[in-house]
Amino acid sequence: MKRSLGVCYYPEHWPEAQWPEDAARMVAAGISRVRIGEFAWGLMEPEPGRFDWGWLDRAIGVLGDAGLEIILGTPTATPPRWMLDRHPDMLALDSQGRPRGFGSRRHYCFSHAGYRAEAARITEAMARRYGRDARVIAWQTDNEYGCHDTVLSYSPAATAAFRDWLAQEYQSPDALNRAWGNVFWSMAYDSFDQIGLPNLTVTEPNPAHAFDFRRFSSAQVVAFNRMQVDILRRHTDAPILHNYMGRELAYDHFAVGADLDIASWDSYPIGFLSDRLEADADHKRRYLRQGDPDMQALHHDLYRAVGRGRWWVMEQQPGPVNWAPWNPAPLPGMVRLWTWEAFAHGAETVAFFRWRQAPFAQEQMHAGLLLPDSSAAPGLAEAAQVAGELAAMPDVAPARAPVALVFDYEAAWAWAVQPQGADFDYFRMVLCWYRGARELGLSIDILPPHAADLGDYRVVLMPGLARLRPSALRALDGFGGRALIGPRSNAKADAMATPVPLPPNLPGMDLRITQVESLPPGMTEPLSGGGHVLHWREHLQGDAEVLETDAAGAPLIVRAGGLDYLGGWPDAAALRRLIRAACAQQGIETESLPEGLRLRDTATHRFAFNYGPDPVVWEGRSLPPAGVAWRAR
Amino acid sequence: MKRSLGVCYYPEHWPEAQWPEDAARMVAAGISRVRIGEFAWGLMEPEPGRFDWGWLDRAIGVLGDAGLEIILGTPTATPPRWMLDRHPDMLALDSQGRPRGFGSRRHYCFSHAGYRAEAARITEAMARRYGRDARVIAWQTDNEYGCHDTVLSYSPAATAAFRDWLAQEYQSPDALNRAWGNVFWSMAYDSFDQIGLPNLTVTEPNPAHAFDFRRFSSAQVVAFNRMQVDILRRHTDAPILHNYMGRELAYDHFAVGADLDIASWDSYPIGFLSDRLEADADHKRRYLRQGDPDMQALHHDLYRAVGRGRWWVMEQQPGPVNWAPWNPAPLPGMVRLWTWEAFAHGAETVAFFRWRQAPFAQEQMHAGLLLPDSSAAPGLAEAAQVAGELAAMPDVAPARAPVALVFDYEAAWAWAVQPQGADFDYFRMVLCWYRGARELGLSIDILPPHAADLGDYRVVLMPGLARLRPSALRALDGFGGRALIGPRSNAKADAMATPVPLPPNLPGMDLRITQVESLPPGMTEPLSGGGHVLHWREHLQGDAEVLETDAAGAPLIVRAGGLDYLGGWPDAAALRRLIRAACAQQGIETESLPEGLRLRDTATHRFAFNYGPDPVVWEGRSLPPAGVAWRAR
Amino acid sequence: MKRSLGVCYYPEHWPEAQWPEDAARMVAAGISRVRIGEFAWGLMEPEPGRFDWGWLDRAIGVLGDAGLEIILGTPTATPPRWMLDRHPDMLALDSQGRPRGFGSRRHYCFSHAGYRAEAARITEAMARRYGRDARVIAWQTDNEYGCHDTVLSYSPAATAAFRDWLAQEYQSPDALNRAWGNVFWSMAYDSFDQIGLPNLTVTEPNPAHAFDFRRFSSAQVVAFNRMQVDILRRHTDAPILHNYMGRELAYDHFAVGADLDIASWDSYPIGFLSDRLEADADHKRRYLRQGDPDMQALHHDLYRAVGRGRWWVMEQQPGPVNWAPWNPAPLPGMVRLWTWEAFAHGAETVAFFRWRQAPFAQEQMHAGLLLPDSSAAPGLAEAAQVAGELAAMPDVAPARAPVALVFDYEAAWAWAVQPQGADFDYFRMVLCWYRGARELGLSIDILPPHAADLGDYRVVLMPGLARLRPSALRALDGFGGRALIGPRSNAKADAMATPVPLPPNLPGMDLRITQVESLPPGMTEPLSGGGHVLHWREHLQGDAEVLETDAAGAPLIVRAGGLDYLGGWPDAAALRRLIRAACAQQGIETESLPEGLRLRDTATHRFAFNYGPDPVVWEGRSLPPAGVAWRAR
Repeated sequence: MKRSLGVCYYPEHWPEAQWPEDAARMVAAGISRVRIGEFAWGLMEPEPGRFDWGWLDRAIGVLGDAGLEIILGTPTATPPRWMLDRHPDMLALDSQGRPRGFGSRRHYCFSHAGYRAEAARITEAMARRYGRDARVIAWQTDNEYGCHDTVLSYSPAATAAFRDWLAQEYQSPDALNRAWGNVFWSMAYDSFDQIGLPNLTVTEPNPAHAFDFRRFSSAQVVAFNRMQVDILRRHTDAPILHNYMGRELAYDHFAVGADLDIASWDSYPIGFLSDRLEADADHKRRYLRQGDPDMQALHHDLYRAVGRGRWWVMEQQPGPVNWAPWNPAPLPGMVRLWTWEAFAHGAETVAFFRWRQAPFAQEQMHAGLLLPDSSAAPGLAEAAQVAGELAAMPDVAPARAPVALVFDYEAAWAWAVQPQGADFDYFRMVLCWYRGARELGLSIDILPPHAADLGDYRVVLMPGLARLRPSALRALDGFGGRALIGPRSNAKADAMATPVPLPPNLPGMDLRITQVESLPPGMTEPLSGGGHVLHWREHLQGDAEVLETDAAGAPLIVRAGGLDYLGGWPDAAALRRLIRAACAQQGIETESLPEGLRLRDTATHRFAFNYGPDPVVWEGRSLPPAGVAWRAR
Repeated sequence: MKRSLGVCYYPEHWPEAQWPEDAARMVAAGISRVRIGEFAWGLMEPEPGRFDWGWLDRAIGVLGDAGLEIILGTPTATPPRWMLDRHPDMLALDSQGRPRGFGSRRHYCFSHAGYRAEAARITEAMARRYGRDARVIAWQTDNEYGCHDTVLSYSPAATAAFRDWLAQEYQSPDALNRAWGNVFWSMAYDSFDQIGLPNLTVTEPNPAHAFDFRRFSSAQVVAFNRMQVDILRRHTDAPILHNYMGRELAYDHFAVGADLDIASWDSYPIGFLSDRLEADADHKRRYLRQGDPDMQALHHDLYRAVGRGRWWVMEQQPGPVNWAPWNPAPLPGMVRLWTWEAFAHGAETVAFFRWRQAPFAQEQMHAGLLLPDSSAAPGLAEAAQVAGELAAMPDVAPARAPVALVFDYEAAWAWAVQPQGADFDYFRMVLCWYRGARELGLSIDILPPHAADLGDYRVVLMPGLARLRPSALRALDGFGGRALIGPRSNAKADAMATPVPLPPNLPGMDLRITQVESLPPGMTEPLSGGGHVLHWREHLQGDAEVLETDAAGAPLIVRAGGLDYLGGWPDAAALRRLIRAACAQQGIETESLPEGLRLRDTATHRFAFNYGPDPVVWEGRSLPPAGVAWRAR
Repeated sequence: MKRSLGVCYYPEHWPEAQWPEDAARMVAAGISRVRIGEFAWGLMEPEPGRFDWGWLDRAIGVLGDAGLEIILGTPTATPPRWMLDRHPDMLALDSQGRPRGFGSRRHYCFSHAGYRAEAARITEAMARRYGRDARVIAWQTDNEYGCHDTVLSYSPAATAAFRDWLAQEYQSPDALNRAWGNVFWSMAYDSFDQIGLPNLTVTEPNPAHAFDFRRFSSAQVVAFNRMQVDILRRHTDAPILHNYMGRELAYDHFAVGADLDIASWDSYPIGFLSDRLEADADHKRRYLRQGDPDMQALHHDLYRAVGRGRWWVMEQQPGPVNWAPWNPAPLPGMVRLWTWEAFAHGAETVAFFRWRQAPFAQEQMHAGLLLPDSSAAPGLAEAAQVAGELAAMPDVAPARAPVALVFDYEAAWAWAVQPQGADFDYFRMVLCWYRGARELGLSIDILPPHAADLGDYRVVLMPGLARLRPSALRALDGFGGRALIGPRSNAKADAMATPVPLPPNLPGMDLRITQVESLPPGMTEPLSGGGHVLHWREHLQGDAEVLETDAAGAPLIVRAGGLDYLGGWPDAAALRRLIRAACAQQGIETESLPEGLRLRDTATHRFAFNYGPDPVVWEGRSLPPAGVAWRAR
């Protein structure tokens, strides 16, 4: 397969006279794809109903003439100002009841029918005009659903839609009252019209209420996206994708992805380190200019799953960004490293955001491949280097990994609604487990929660899966590999209820969780095999074989058949130890890597990436900081 | 007196078929009392005016048949959803002006006349039906007034009621203007109708305004409770109580208690340690699974005072809870220790919250004596052990303590309104003083601010009493024991004014506070006798005998007659030293106890409680962690 | 010139019978000026249109008879309660959309035309009555514009006025769209009426939008003040001033000052240390009772510039205040030190706030020169000491300093709108540079951003000047001294755009900033000459001579002609080193001073101030803590 580089470009930001030179320079740098259009509604439709396609026609012409393949975005993340006059109530409200107004982007509520119709209208108009244009090789829907915390809206439109959704889901208020346990605190409803959103309650709302609101809100995103996809499909055969934002968990990306052909995500390693990573000061200092060594890889593997194998990086950080608390520059070489790492995980395309740094508006401090004066920014040479290297390589097709990790958006919502400990977070836990495997040099596949077949994986990681789906339970029944499950896995029934019989109710394992504890920072329990549990521990009862205990001899890890249940959150040392042991048992080789070094196996090669600030030795050769190396497998 | 164990039970959460077995198991565990009903309005009155008592009749029947004594709660903390249709404006508004909506509990404004009438109506209906039922041996009004910060409401109903209250209090706007000093910043009012609530002002409101709003808000709670008590008294002779929440200071518990027969409080030692205690990380780690060693005892003594001798623990933590930032499990033995400690302080009944952990809704992660699957949780055996021990003991009647501490809710409001230092808090200071005495092995009585007679106490502690009441000043005049007074005691006149002549104006003491200082963390002043003052220091002028000075020789503690005035907040070492010296002077014996050990004397016994994580030796015997011991006095 | 002491007095707070004694005691303490009236609108106009001047006539009479000179304040910071009935919409809204209500002060929106008319009316009435009164020697407009964050208002009145202002500024929506870059994210407007305020947007607003709102908001303050000045000028020849608040940056004080005759500011050294200073715990502990050693001096020099030479301290802290997080008392001697320091910087008058501590309302914990019981507070003797010393001295007239620092309020807004690093703050940076010069014993003049002539200064400091004004660029062209410029200087074009060609575009210097980085706490880059840069670094490209580099040899400081450009935020050691070198090169003598010692040269004397907690030696004599010394130059 031809893997390629791309770039995000905003022809509308620059004089037309500059477009041909821009296109030529892209091509010269080895870039073959260009995404355009996704924020340009105001230019496409300057007044309601009056379309102006001329500029876009010409931009596509110039880019196409240069040989660039175009990804065209629907512009629904940025409705123009006149839209507000037509739909004054289209804005989302935040959890404090304040409208989230015009003046930036994503100023719409997914539940607003009027806006959804407008979004359909512009999608249809674009699709009609460009759907059969061969230069447009893919379509992007909207932009970064959920970015800026825009999934949960507390608007009247959301309230009405939530009531409808609940009526569909439960059919009668009595059924809802029973499912939610509304007998508690006299919270029962007589009609769906009495149900509000779970914000601004005196103390916490019913977790069932909050969880259903999250399920509903996710479904609204799925429906909004499907509306666009359905329209596009009527007019184009090009693949359709969406550019997911990193560490965005408020809606089910698998469900959105099911309607798409390709998944893509927006990778900002240094921004995420500063803004979206729980880590101590040492870790943040060590990786300040590189990004966390596992954060990108986890997302790569996740979106390979979301895209059912087909995935891109749609926006790759090319230099300092503007939106994190602090915005340092990448270590020289990191733009290349990040790009290669994406390809090693199977990306078809890696596109940089953006071509030229804008001298105006919100993102003017966000680096591009060019500076505002059109001179080359440091990222450009690294992009060109990758282009050259890629051309010189055989294809880097992904191989099935030996280890799988099951990822579930519902689990993220469940523990957001009911953390029980102030620092318990689903994604944080998943990243710890993923890191544990990566530090052993392993490649990992991510599986959706509804994966029906685990048979090809010898080791499966299943932390914190609030509710194991029936298919997963069936797959675990008699599983022949080694599954590391828990804590908090299968801890929930429908509507966030506690199951009776007590969790985890795993096939073939006699085990009941009789008590759970959240532990404040600094409080740990030693594991008899080494390391500690932190953040969370459970009290286990039953006849399952005890593998490890706490200092007092109480079981913390038990086993039955191919399943190991972990009644706690192991620290990094314990995770490495446990995963290494599972791999050893299953005949999977693991490594002892220097800090910051990570590996990734493709079908034909083993890649090595040095995220650390110091040189390391890998298989006899020295890898400098930001170094990338590979060898045939 | 027969002291007893109880439990909180929600028959409405379980199938009726399970009730008899539940009742039998309670009795088997040595539990003789059961509280029910306090959140069940929705089932009692499923539609406005249509009552359904059948289920409650049957529940009382089953429980009564098992020999259990019933405490029946009025359900006014959880008005059903239909109530909102009748009174859309019954909700409290928070200080930011947002309605505090339906979906949890305590969703009412104490000042709303319509809701108050509804609360009267359901109270009357319950009282008529069960007031003469011999199985109901006590009544509880509402539930945890003030929990979730529900005393202060900024609603239109509260505004109107506040204006009425001010009109009663001051009679004319001019009088109010004079009392508040509204000449300052041109804040004078021409009519009571111009007065708003003290929220959302540009900078801080007049402290007189804020303080009167707190007095008013407290009075609204008192009136709401009195309304219920008055109704109940017309229909029952059973004692009436309320279950106060721990560290709840927004209304005057003494004033509410004056209308009740018994005080009770809800004791969650581990939740409070995590959520409501200023302490360093070491202290919080040391007592993570035990709770603070003095927090419970202080509340026990406080509610013994509020109940004028008669008091219960209505809700005793039996395992991990769900509502604190972190929720670890009690050390084995702590449920027994907490229960015994309550009895040693004179509790008549200790009731556990709750019988069986609910598998649904907000508190599904809150432990009970049973797990959701009806198997025994760890707390059950400890409860049963206490029941056995209690039956084998002579009565543990309280004795008058040698030391008294005066506690004043108004002082808490005064310093909340005018802390002058960001970490100055009345309750925090009181707990420090109380701890100082407890660490010397002392038993303590708490006195209300209007206590007229101190004569039986040899040592009296009076920290931070913003306004000494006339009765207290009379009692101090010629006091024969030793009173440790200050800092900030008698520092305020009416309406938060600074008195002239300057404070503290103590009988027989020539002393003026000429300057006060709040000190940031880490800044201390050494006390000449040992230890330091922190948080707060005062500059003292006058002829009173100087006992201790700062490093520069400026007086910090002075004496006249039986009164010592402390011009600062002594640290733990200084507090122990000062209280020990006062006791020595007054012939009261003190102890030097190992860390974490606490004592409590009843009329007949001395009890010892080991809150520490290590064994300690007490009177020759080893007490393990969570150990309880006693000997005859 | 006669330099004098003053005091702030509120006759309306005290019985008339006390006024004569108060006046006599002021005079006895060496105080010759008294400010009155600025909060007394409610007494001047108790009902709309009914004026009561009697009390003020009598107060002026008593004070004047005692020989005191009066400064009369317009009372527009405290409109009475009845004003709200006439103009219910006169309140500012905060950025969350909440009205900022009655009950304290500054409860008005600068953009409200109705309130502006009322302010004009009371100003006119006062001016007519007292404008020709010889006892009134100066007028103060309003009080502390901007205090309590009152410049930015998000009210409907502000919205309407902002639209008008934008229409004036840009003339057409298209011009505004181009200037703001509204092509980005489809943010273009079709009419000015569509433009809202830059709050409550989904993510950050366009920096051009936010910056223009700040320029507008500043202009509203200027216009409000000018309205009062214009009225006063018609009725009085007395000088007009305003009392600016410390570290208040939300409006352009130079622009307000251009309409005034004298600038004054309100100096609360200990309050500012606790509330408004970025400093580590050691620094805050060291200067807890003295205030930061450079904060006051910087303000003195700033307001000397704002007042074009004529400036006062209108409110000098005389003891502990009430409004900072913590409020300790000044070290004995500090009131004298602060006062002398102001005179050494050229203050004409230093007035203490306030005469007698009020026993009521918001500021009752704020010290005065007298205690509430009329006895002397510690500050009184120090004030009297200064009065005596001042009388015994020749005049302390200011001399032109050898070093200048350019200060620009627009730069503060630019970096508040676009900090790019969470801890990047303009004032903080300026204070670091100012401190660097002061630690070398230098006296400094502050220049406004539009200063056209730098020729008399040998060393000029220009950190962070977002947009160099044309006059400044002309002055730098061929500058014969040494200018230290940057970082982020001249980094912006109009409307917050990034200039192309890239910054800094300094005359005669070939330099482009190709990349900027914000650095989190703990991350630094070593400077080849010593010290480090922190918070911020830039990547420099061009032919300018490289003076210093980072560890990797990349340029951090470059030079062309008289201009040095600094591509980073130097730490304290580097700043001292760089400024010392510039001075040495320019023949300016510098000192090596013990920590906490500061110097200031007047035309005739060199003054020394010991801010440190320990004695220091200066020119052979020992200066105790809080010590002040001087010698002839």
